[in-house]
Amino acid sequence: MMIVMKETATEEQIAAVVSKVERAGARAHRSTGARVTVIGAIGDVEQDVSVESIGLEGEAGVDRVVPILKPYKLASSQFRHGERTVLDIAGAKVGGEHFTLIAGPCTVESRAQTLETAQVVRDAGASLFRGGAYKPRTSPYAFQGLGQEGLRLLAEAKAQSGLPVVTELMDLRDLELVLEVADVIQIGARNMQNYPLLAEVGRSGRPALLKRGLSSTLDELLMAAEYILKEGNPNVMLCERGIRTFETDHRRVTLDLMAVPVLKELSHLPVIVDPSHAAGRRDLVPPLSLAAAAAGADGIIVEVHPKPEEAVCDGPQQLFTETFAEYASDVRRAAALAGKALAAA
Amino acid sequence: MMIVMKETATEEQIAAVVSKVERAGARAHRSTGARVTVIGAIGDVEQDVSVESIGLEGEAGVDRVVPILKPYKLASSQFRHGERTVLDIAGAKVGGEHFTLIAGPCTVESRAQTLETAQVVRDAGASLFRGGAYKPRTSPYAFQGLGQEGLRLLAEAKAQSGLPVVTELMDLRDLELVLEVADVIQIGARNMQNYPLLAEVGRSGRPALLKRGLSSTLDELLMAAEYILKEGNPNVMLCERGIRTFETDHRRVTLDLMAVPVLKELSHLPVIVDPSHAAGRRDLVPPLSLAAAAAGADGIIVEVHPKPEEAVCDGPQQLFTETFAEYASDVRRAAALAGKALAAA
Amino acid sequence: MMIVMKETATEEQIAAVVSKVERAGARAHRSTGARVTVIGAIGDVEQDVSVESIGLEGEAGVDRVVPILKPYKLASSQFRHGERTVLDIAGAKVGGEHFTLIAGPCTVESRAQTLETAQVVRDAGASLFRGGAYKPRTSPYAFQGLGQEGLRLLAEAKAQSGLPVVTELMDLRDLELVLEVADVIQIGARNMQNYPLLAEVGRSGRPALLKRGLSSTLDELLMAAEYILKEGNPNVMLCERGIRTFETDHRRVTLDLMAVPVLKELSHLPVIVDPSHAAGRRDLVPPLSLAAAAAGADGIIVEVHPKPEEAVCDGPQQLFTETFAEYASDVRRAAALAGKALAAA
Amino acid sequence: MMIVMKETATEEQIAAVVSKVERAGARAHRSTGARVTVIGAIGDVEQDVSVESIGLEGEAGVDRVVPILKPYKLASSQFRHGERTVLDIAGAKVGGEHFTLIAGPCTVESRAQTLETAQVVRDAGASLFRGGAYKPRTSPYAFQGLGQEGLRLLAEAKAQSGLPVVTELMDLRDLELVLEVADVIQIGARNMQNYPLLAEVGRSGRPALLKRGLSSTLDELLMAAEYILKEGNPNVMLCERGIRTFETDHRRVTLDLMAVPVLKELSHLPVIVDPSHAAGRRDLVPPLSLAAAAAGADGIIVEVHPKPEEAVCDGPQQLFTETFAEYASDVRRAAALAGKALAAA
Repeated sequence: MMIVMKETATEEQIAAVVSKVERAGARAHRSTGARVTVIGAIGDVEQDVSVESIGLEGEAGVDRVVPILKPYKLASSQFRHGERTVLDIAGAKVGGEHFTLIAGPCTVESRAQTLETAQVVRDAGASLFRGGAYKPRTSPYAFQGLGQEGLRLLAEAKAQSGLPVVTELMDLRDLELVLEVADVIQIGARNMQNYPLLAEVGRSGRPALLKRGLSSTLDELLMAAEYILKEGNPNVMLCERGIRTFETDHRRVTLDLMAVPVLKELSHLPVIVDPSHAAGRRDLVPPLSLAAAAAGADGIIVEVHPKPEEAVCDGPQQLFTETFAEYASDVRRAAALAGKALAAA
Repeated sequence: MMIVMKETATEEQIAAVVSKVERAGARAHRSTGARVTVIGAIGDVEQDVSVESIGLEGEAGVDRVVPILKPYKLASSQFRHGERTVLDIAGAKVGGEHFTLIAGPCTVESRAQTLETAQVVRDAGASLFRGGAYKPRTSPYAFQGLGQEGLRLLAEAKAQSGLPVVTELMDLRDLELVLEVADVIQIGARNMQNYPLLAEVGRSGRPALLKRGLSSTLDELLMAAEYILKEGNPNVMLCERGIRTFETDHRRVTLDLMAVPVLKELSHLPVIVDPSHAAGRRDLVPPLSLAAAAAGADGIIVEVHPKPEEAVCDGPQQLFTETFAEYASDVRRAAALAGKALAAA
Repeated sequence: MMIVMKETATEEQIAAVVSKVERAGARAHRSTGARVTVIGAIGDVEQDVSVESIGLEGEAGVDRVVPILKPYKLASSQFRHGERTVLDIAGAKVGGEHFTLIAGPCTVESRAQTLETAQVVRDAGASLFRGGAYKPRTSPYAFQGLGQEGLRLLAEAKAQSGLPVVTELMDLRDLELVLEVADVIQIGARNMQNYPLLAEVGRSGRPALLKRGLSSTLDELLMAAEYILKEGNPNVMLCERGIRTFETDHRRVTLDLMAVPVLKELSHLPVIVDPSHAAGRRDLVPPLSLAAAAAGADGIIVEVHPKPEEAVCDGPQQLFTETFAEYASDVRRAAALAGKALAAA
Repeated sequence: MMIVMKETATEEQIAAVVSKVERAGARAHRSTGARVTVIGAIGDVEQDVSVESIGLEGEAGVDRVVPILKPYKLASSQFRHGERTVLDIAGAKVGGEHFTLIAGPCTVESRAQTLETAQVVRDAGASLFRGGAYKPRTSPYAFQGLGQEGLRLLAEAKAQSGLPVVTELMDLRDLELVLEVADVIQIGARNMQNYPLLAEVGRSGRPALLKRGLSSTLDELLMAAEYILKEGNPNVMLCERGIRTFETDHRRVTLDLMAVPVLKELSHLPVIVDPSHAAGRRDLVPPLSLAAAAAGADGIIVEVHPKPEEAVCDGPQQLFTETFAEYASDVRRAAALAGKALAAA
């Protein structure tokens, strides 16, 4: 890292920084310009992180601390020397040349709704089935999901459709139950920095779909992925689902599609986009899906329902099963623009 | 509009609001629930705006004021009953079924650079040529553009290439000079709420490309367009170029592609996307361009330079002229996904 | 709630909304203006929440859904009819006319550091001692706290100084251990929407200090408090510690001091401000502390260390123990401006 | 500045950067760590800005460009070697040990309203009188101010009360008229980057109150001040009036009080806070005013009206004249906490 001193920094302050860098086991490389002194802290590869943590930010005489190395390692492109991770989820490929369509209802509500939707999305070319049994809700009074009964219905949908299942884990204590059904464990935006949860999912070895927090930078998202990877689980998908901005009319959050090419440069992990939650409105889902695919996303996770107008949760953002095949076909063409083909189920 | 009273509002406070609504010439329609009273202020069509301005927000006992009618009229979809505006810029169409590629250098630097770029972008299918003679720069010490000499070079490029010209107006006092060359007057993000400038561009009748301010809501962008439209100038293009968010690494601003379908729903005006300024990095420009076209944008305004590495301004975000034809062809295919064909020059 | 229809909404769409409202057990009250129809959904007090969850946002023909009632109940000012909650933490008062100074090191590092700091802050007038045993860290490679050993040191500091202890709980599985020491359980910003954690802290009955998430609205903060209150635990303090904005230079986040008067209007719960984490720089802590106290905060939680330059975590934002008494005296004067007196230890 | 190369940067890319730095007249100082190369570009004092503008951001192989020197010079603390600017506005001091209360109506509406308010605020201790004759309004249909008639009334208020006048300039073409009355020219948030306007105000030599744009960083605010200072006008006050964040309920924008100590560290210019526009609600104005004063602001600009409930603009945020003296006395006490005394009128 580099420590940029203030123009007013005294020699004592500079010396204090140098000594702190050296106490942390790194070499301090001082370079003094006409107005400002910059101190480079150069460690060997393994020491960089401890250098990062010596906490010089805010130190007297210090203007800024500029990290040079990325704080994540296992998630970085360099870790795999530019090669991309391709996951294999019970035969469904994610990443590389594959474009993966993950579809299903927001919430598992009933047997009929679940099985019908799984059938429709499989026939339209989806290769993973999504559905929530445990739902994180802003209000403690809102429907919190069917829980174990929901997991059971997901298992039945999996058996019948042959599609692997993506479902969310919110509570560590449900891990065993969720592992019985989930081929991919979804970690929601609210839990992106729930570190005990990340570590346990890491230890489980089960593939994870990690959603970006509403105000998380891309570096923070990659650090959260690092918590999973560090436990020896290399099967992580990153998911952009919108960020909080000043624009609060006409949509829930702002979908950050720049994140797609940037994440793909920073990391070898596949990048999925969730247009449903970002928009909160069905009519925005198709254009955003095409945009995500054209921008090079490795897949889309989208909500579909046979009768969204009767859905217990997020009805207005769910696509209709009856038009889903057409939607899937449009998305396939957009993915082709970015050189990707729909992954087989 | 509706005035939502606080749960603790007294009868006096409610009466004061009612009387204020009525003094403004509207009818007050009170509806009292179990816990909260809501007062609807119903004016006739023309009175709505004056009702909007009676300023009840923050009044004693008032929880919130909820506007019902959009504050813009001429810019709204309703104003043209759902029909879309199609501009004709010296033969180049913008809007409707047309996809318009606007390309050229950030800044006019020299005769050779300008004429060569115009030639290349025309041959690749661009129908409008962009180039800056007056440059708004954050630093007073930075290059501020060639000024009148730049306008002269733009005129020459126009004569030679046959492409109409888009160039920015920053200072009202330059209006006459700019009008001699510009087929489209660009209003930069920093000037989106420079009302005297908007009104003069409105009075000039010349087509305008209005960039969204970095922290402007879509409603504010449409209100700024309204300032131009109100002067009798119906030729306005809206331009999304990125917004300020907490994410400040790896890019300049966050391109808000949700703005494309939302603006097209709210307004009849064409929506252009500027991926170059949003990204600030050349490598992000192609994926964002495809995404914008796939999302249904009416066009893209993009920066191109024969030798970006020598550009006096924003070199790293400018595409190379030598690969521009391929870029244009990819964008054309993405626009086709959204049902649009490249506008002829 | 009110449903504002689009100007283009058809009679069928309006009828569909009315019927959906009625199916949810509420009365639909239609009011049609010159251009727009608004439908009020009026339930009785208890039905309001279920009305909230019928999900009309994004429904065909619907422009916006405007909630009328606040989604939180137990946290709202109305719930206590304007009376403020005053907590009693082993004799230390929080809320009402009391101003509570909560101070201590970021992290418990050693016996000497912990006991010395507790002594100093008690002597200067702090009435609660803070210290982290479990630390949520963005990087999995960073120091994660002393864990159980840290809790043991906190217990010793409590015994010696007589100050009740505030410490963070990150992992449900540590609840029992934390309950043995903590007089107040801190829930960090990253866990503000970790609902299982909130519910368990609610069930424990132990007073909680709930930090606002970096991108959480005040309504979301109050909904998170509601998760705790709903389990029968009325002892909740809200804590403002800065929000994510586009301004990322010169500080970590942006301290939102408007939140202080606004939260105190919306809720009866005490409002604490954490200037240390917001600033990330020691020099900003005193002016922000005075500002928070002058704005009417019920207390401040601040970091102090005998040798911040040697702290293992967040050293640059920690105040020096040796100047803490002077700081505390300044804060006391600022609190007096807002009509509050320092709570006794 | 320093150029941080990507881990994957090739020797050719590093060489290209070095050569570009040298072509710009600076020395390139290469330092190669275990994984990453950093290139320092060291110019002499005057060359730094041109180095800044060589545009290496986004260049192939470049990860980031880190500016070392602040881009502003005249506005920086270093320029005056730590001494603070104290303005003298017709006898009213701003900056240093002085706390300046600037008060008056949002808009000049009538002779009675204007003269009465001037009298009241002077008697309460305000040393400058504010009032708008030209009003920037989001809607072209809203009241745009009394214009020249408003200026005339301000002149009368000045003559009668003896208070110097602060009023906004929006249109360059009104400069002469405004100069006849204004002791301080206000530049509104929307015009913070209206460079021709800034330059003309700079040339006029008249003291300026420069409001921060809603999404402007502090560095951008200081760069805007630099546009004025560069023309030889040293009389600039900076004004924080709130920024756009995701939090859009319960207030208009988020007042950034961290800006006060940070700006005072970065710059020698006085820092004024405008709580009225940030809040948009009268009840938030007193706590925010106390907070601003306690945080060390050099003054407050606040709106006052004899009958806010009848104001043509922003009534709900204006304080009542009848309670203004008490408000002013509270603010005086808060300013004293920060070591400042109310400036004499």
